[in-house]
Amino acid sequence: MQHIEQYQEVFLNYLKSFTLNKEPKNLYSPINYILQLGGKRLRPILTLMTAEAFGGEAEDAMDAALSIEVFHNFSLVHDDIMDAAPLRRGKTTVHEKWNLNTGILSGDAMLIMAYQLFENYEPEIFQALAKLFSKTALEVCEGQQYDIDFETRDDVTIAEYLKMIEYKTAVLVGAAMKMGAIVAKSSHEDQNSIYEFGRLLGIAFQLQDDYLDAFGNPETFGKQVGGDIIENKKTYLYLKTIELGADDTLNLKTLMSNSDVNNEEKVEKVKHLFTNSGAAEATQDAVKTYTNKAFKVLDNLNITEDKKQSLRIFGQQLMNRRV
Amino acid sequence: MQHIEQYQEVFLNYLKSFTLNKEPKNLYSPINYILQLGGKRLRPILTLMTAEAFGGEAEDAMDAALSIEVFHNFSLVHDDIMDAAPLRRGKTTVHEKWNLNTGILSGDAMLIMAYQLFENYEPEIFQALAKLFSKTALEVCEGQQYDIDFETRDDVTIAEYLKMIEYKTAVLVGAAMKMGAIVAKSSHEDQNSIYEFGRLLGIAFQLQDDYLDAFGNPETFGKQVGGDIIENKKTYLYLKTIELGADDTLNLKTLMSNSDVNNEEKVEKVKHLFTNSGAAEATQDAVKTYTNKAFKVLDNLNITEDKKQSLRIFGQQLMNRRV
Repeated sequence: MQHIEQYQEVFLNYLKSFTLNKEPKNLYSPINYILQLGGKRLRPILTLMTAEAFGGEAEDAMDAALSIEVFHNFSLVHDDIMDAAPLRRGKTTVHEKWNLNTGILSGDAMLIMAYQLFENYEPEIFQALAKLFSKTALEVCEGQQYDIDFETRDDVTIAEYLKMIEYKTAVLVGAAMKMGAIVAKSSHEDQNSIYEFGRLLGIAFQLQDDYLDAFGNPETFGKQVGGDIIENKKTYLYLKTIELGADDTLNLKTLMSNSDVNNEEKVEKVKHLFTNSGAAEATQDAVKTYTNKAFKVLDNLNITEDKKQSLRIFGQQLMNRRV
Repeated sequence: MQHIEQYQEVFLNYLKSFTLNKEPKNLYSPINYILQLGGKRLRPILTLMTAEAFGGEAEDAMDAALSIEVFHNFSLVHDDIMDAAPLRRGKTTVHEKWNLNTGILSGDAMLIMAYQLFENYEPEIFQALAKLFSKTALEVCEGQQYDIDFETRDDVTIAEYLKMIEYKTAVLVGAAMKMGAIVAKSSHEDQNSIYEFGRLLGIAFQLQDDYLDAFGNPETFGKQVGGDIIENKKTYLYLKTIELGADDTLNLKTLMSNSDVNNEEKVEKVKHLFTNSGAAEATQDAVKTYTNKAFKVLDNLNITEDKKQSLRIFGQQLMNRRV
């Protein structure tokens, strides 16, 4: 198995060859645009890496990896419309650069193309990949709907929040890895274990993201630190503060529902409540718990110790980011 | 083989059992809503009928038929957003009844669910259905994009227009029938012939629709007669008038670009140009030509004469509608 950077390079080369010189241009140009916009390509790399961990060839997993990346970008295009987001990775979003209709239609085409990328696999593998893909894609839609629903709800529980991030984010990480295992024709037991590893790591990753959004280093964190607070998002930090801090709840709800307050002041005050209530620490604990649960699943895998170690190292790199 | 009404009944029963009591409600209620909104269900009936024509069981084709119907309704939901349409079959459209985001997300979920409906078929059949579905669905997206592009173009040729309606409408009719043939495990040759039959009939059907939109009986035609004219749509009638009538071209372009003119007067004047130029007759000729081409394909099919006759009758019923 190779280093992340090597997987990244080989995947980016493959992605380049996917450039669509097809008609109508107004449908396919936005797809090229979003696919070339950058990103760490973590999900497809997980597919390639997992295929190798189970004794398969990264090359054979390339189409499955690309499918995951195309699907991920489909969801970004449609989510950006729903969030009315002007920017994605510092660049204009598809619906802003073109228009709403192009965003919808190009997204639809990407979802279909993600399925087409399975077509070169033999029927049994094709069906296994497509079934997993459909289940996962539908859960991602459900997660997005829960996320939208939560915006106008005042009684979201932590269990509901965890289910939402599981669906919206974590299942795709699990599926990316399971696809590598499917292509490598590993046992069903191993396929399910690696899915579980990815799913748990995905939850840990999203909780970490919640934490870093408030407490990350502004110089290295990709997004605006405090963005979730400014947008009054009900993150794990928020929900945990309400759960833990009887005194802080009212203050927090007042701050988060007040649109007149200065953003910088609001971020500082809310962060203070996050820390003071113990919610910040509880979030870091939850990240650790999910990460450890994920690593424990690795123990049961039917692969050599050095391959387990590679997956562990990758997982740790993912979780130790402070950016 | 049975009558259309019998297929309709059995399909509607199956569709009812598809009602989605799933969470989140805000994702699945709009899907139930649009699927129960009515319509003639012609596409899924074609799947069932074709399966039987090739010696299969309609029952076995039910999931494929439902997939076609779910996909068709997905495309209606997203198209209605793109067209900013307030009504669909006389009822409020999904994005109007709920909102834009619900329209996008429920549509996405339907596209995924259409694939899931193939999952009960064995791997080879599954792959054949899913491949045909993806190819067709992507062409439908391309057709929609061409349709959008044509709105702002002044130099659309009849060949381009025919390609657009082929992609946007006809390929789905072909695919609906081919799926029936796939489920019935007919020969590849027969699968391709029945696809061709459906595709040609689909083009004839759409040209007929163009004609009826202007010249249909207002009392029985489902939509507002003259709707295409009022919306300045570049239909076959319009493009043919420009192709045929040197003198009429200027009048037509003036009428169609003038938004001040009274609608009733505009429709009457444009219809006069359509008739006067010979475009109306040419459109009816084109309908006949494509219908006859379709029927000719039936001759080559490897099925009994009485089954060919059933398909012919169904095709004729489809094309003889004056509503």
